[in-house]
Amino acid sequence: MANEFELIYQSIAPLAATAQADGVALGIGDDAALLQVPEGYQLVTSMDTLVAGRHFFVGTSAADIGWKALAVNLSDMAAMGAEPKWALLSLSLPADYAQTRWIGEFMQGWQALADQYAVSLVGGDTTASEQLVISVTLMGIVPQNQGILRSGAQLGDDIWLSHSIGDAGLAVVQYQQQQQPTDSVAMRLHRPQPHVSLGAALRPYANAMMDVSDGFIQDLEHLLLASSQRLSAKQANSIVLGASCYLESFQFSNQVQAWQASERNLVLPLTSGDDYVLLFTASPEHRQAIAQLQTGDYRLQRVGEVTATQGVKVHWQQQQLPLPTQGGFKHF
Amino acid sequence: MANEFELIYQSIAPLAATAQADGVALGIGDDAALLQVPEGYQLVTSMDTLVAGRHFFVGTSAADIGWKALAVNLSDMAAMGAEPKWALLSLSLPADYAQTRWIGEFMQGWQALADQYAVSLVGGDTTASEQLVISVTLMGIVPQNQGILRSGAQLGDDIWLSHSIGDAGLAVVQYQQQQQPTDSVAMRLHRPQPHVSLGAALRPYANAMMDVSDGFIQDLEHLLLASSQRLSAKQANSIVLGASCYLESFQFSNQVQAWQASERNLVLPLTSGDDYVLLFTASPEHRQAIAQLQTGDYRLQRVGEVTATQGVKVHWQQQQLPLPTQGGFKHF
Repeated sequence: MANEFELIYQSIAPLAATAQADGVALGIGDDAALLQVPEGYQLVTSMDTLVAGRHFFVGTSAADIGWKALAVNLSDMAAMGAEPKWALLSLSLPADYAQTRWIGEFMQGWQALADQYAVSLVGGDTTASEQLVISVTLMGIVPQNQGILRSGAQLGDDIWLSHSIGDAGLAVVQYQQQQQPTDSVAMRLHRPQPHVSLGAALRPYANAMMDVSDGFIQDLEHLLLASSQRLSAKQANSIVLGASCYLESFQFSNQVQAWQASERNLVLPLTSGDDYVLLFTASPEHRQAIAQLQTGDYRLQRVGEVTATQGVKVHWQQQQLPLPTQGGFKHF
Repeated sequence: MANEFELIYQSIAPLAATAQADGVALGIGDDAALLQVPEGYQLVTSMDTLVAGRHFFVGTSAADIGWKALAVNLSDMAAMGAEPKWALLSLSLPADYAQTRWIGEFMQGWQALADQYAVSLVGGDTTASEQLVISVTLMGIVPQNQGILRSGAQLGDDIWLSHSIGDAGLAVVQYQQQQQPTDSVAMRLHRPQPHVSLGAALRPYANAMMDVSDGFIQDLEHLLLASSQRLSAKQANSIVLGASCYLESFQFSNQVQAWQASERNLVLPLTSGDDYVLLFTASPEHRQAIAQLQTGDYRLQRVGEVTATQGVKVHWQQQQLPLPTQGGFKHF
């Protein structure tokens, strides 16, 4: 079997950043990379790990895994309103995967997405393991003090989503039941499209933003908690923010609507995970400006508002729907 | 068992960077961290992964693993002459480890070293897995264009090491043979001291630098290859650099000397891994200046010189020693 260095240089280095890439003074091959953050910008950085059998099914194609490993991190950049620039990739590979072919296909999927956003691979690590584990660190930039935090929501803000939710969760359930999802549903699981351009375009409008990865309700609760804490600290007074959402305002795909109907459970897509869409809040005065950001890549939808009553409430036909007590993706 | 969020907030967040930490505008808790690279500096970044049973024995204490996970990355920063600043930590944890106690001890070991270098933990990920896998991304800064590459060696340079080598490799062999290493030998394996201050102090003197992690000879070969390629590109002419090293110039510990004698193998400590000392080359004119950087933390030793003959040659008593064809740590 090839050793670490052969693997890296055969399959990864040809795709790696060179000194010509934007802001890369030194890429793969030394103890560390040297990068140039332009003046007037802050560095934005996040790290996400994907574990085989937990974050993707073991049979998932190498190319899809490569795409997704980058996509989930790009989604974090999008959620800050940042421009992604550079990536570090750590592959922990069982013997079955530690082969030029698997790594080549993985990098093909990775690079298809990296090219869309001009993300340069500048370093990382390759090591043997018993389980396939992929860690990615993404670094981006945002103009000084313009990053959009999840803690900025204000009372009376509209609550928005950048796209439909529930499709990826439906795909997971269908695979678990040995059913084949439709292509459009499967793509939402395997090839999520991070909303990077929209995230940056929302900098003038969004008060708070995060990406929905663990289920809409759970993630909205985190946003509200962080915002409540920040407001409370600012005003030296205990402030509680909550949310009222209106199921009629969500634009679910036909497949997700059929899923809701067959399970007789309207809130399913609000609690399933893996959506990787943007969840943000903004003052009602920006409704028109935000609607104008709509392109074919997004399905912007205003789904509720920030209230002064603790918790997330979901309404349907003027009634409040019961919510599961443990919604969302749990890692343990 | 605790879920992801509880684990993170119980054990990691209290140790994490706050907005008060140097250059940290936003730490753990959002989609990404926001960091400030000072003007006139480049960002230096590396990522290293430790896998249980491969990079450390499965029974290693949580605190030692925490220390080492940070140390190996600090060693990369040191090798660039950089000042470490911020870290991202990804823990993939089997159920046995996904407990507050293990994580608390891990973070205790981590933080003991992080405090030495004022490294702030600004983000990361925690997920369940079947095997313990730890990925760390470290970010540091270096004054513009002053990072020390491994590709800068010049013909006639002295070859230096920042400390004795072979002790960690001896510890590995002793553990494998069910022997207990002496404390000083065990510490070199479990608690390597990254040579961060020395690395930065060498910026005016070192032409090339890297850290020794996979065995001295193998790592020196990489340094020479990178330097040969860079010189060849610069001069549009094929330049080959090699090295002559003199075993008498290496300062081995007493334990390593006993190991060499018992195995009747003088080059053992030049091929064993896990040293995490600095290997650098510098013009002979800087010998005195470099010797003055010696403190109790280092054991600076000038072990050879860069030649125009391909390969690493090791001499002892005016004879050339035979070297193993496959020296150094192989990850596969």
